[in-house]
Amino acid sequence: MLTSILLSAGLALMGAGIGAGIVAIGAGLGIGRIGGQAMESIARQPEAAGKVQTAMLIIAALIEVVSLFAVVVCLLIALNAGGLTF
Amino acid sequence: MLTSILLSAGLALMGAGIGAGIVAIGAGLGIGRIGGQAMESIARQPEAAGKVQTAMLIIAALIEVVSLFAVVVCLLIALNAGGLTF
Amino acid sequence: MLTSILLSAGLALMGAGIGAGIVAIGAGLGIGRIGGQAMESIARQPEAAGKVQTAMLIIAALIEVVSLFAVVVCLLIALNAGGLTF
Repeated sequence: MLTSILLSAGLALMGAGIGAGIVAIGAGLGIGRIGGQAMESIARQPEAAGKVQTAMLIIAALIEVVSLFAVVVCLLIALNAGGLTF
Repeated sequence: MLTSILLSAGLALMGAGIGAGIVAIGAGLGIGRIGGQAMESIARQPEAAGKVQTAMLIIAALIEVVSLFAVVVCLLIALNAGGLTF
Repeated sequence: MLTSILLSAGLALMGAGIGAGIVAIGAGLGIGRIGGQAMESIARQPEAAGKVQTAMLIIAALIEVVSLFAVVVCLLIALNAGGLTF
């Protein structure tokens, strides 16, 4: 049984690491698209730069919250699985 | 029992390495898109370069935060799993 | 038991190698896109070359930081796992 606990911790840590990586892909795709279009919008209407930037931050913050929450979940898995056997 | 401890650490380290790599894909996709559009925007409206650059840095910093956090999670996994058997 | 030590180190080293490769994909996608758009932008507005180049370096440095950090994590895994059996 102890054997399985330990093997289990390895699988858990593997999932936590890969999961943290996939979170970064999600944040990059989402915030990257928002930011890219915001750059184009500011260049097209420089006088609207303030409005574009405000909206950009509000919507990007939504992705940021989910991403940070997901990374924290991976961190908790890493700490818990690490605290169990290591 | 020791057998599984060691196998477990191997799985954990594998996940940490692959996870760190995937984080870089996320950061590259996201910041790359923001930076690419920012280059085009500066060329289209050189007089708006300051505004574009400010917004570019703000939004890229959001991706940077998530990415560095995720890499630190992978680093923690690597150090914890490494400290056990190596 | 020695079998598992070796298998474990093999898995860890495999993850470190694959992870380092994926990091290069991420950096290539991101910095490549930034650089590509920067080339086009300088060609379209040669008088804005200085501004484009400054912004290009700033934003590419953000990807560089994440990528180097991730490669260092893979290097640490490789050195730790390598120190065990090799």
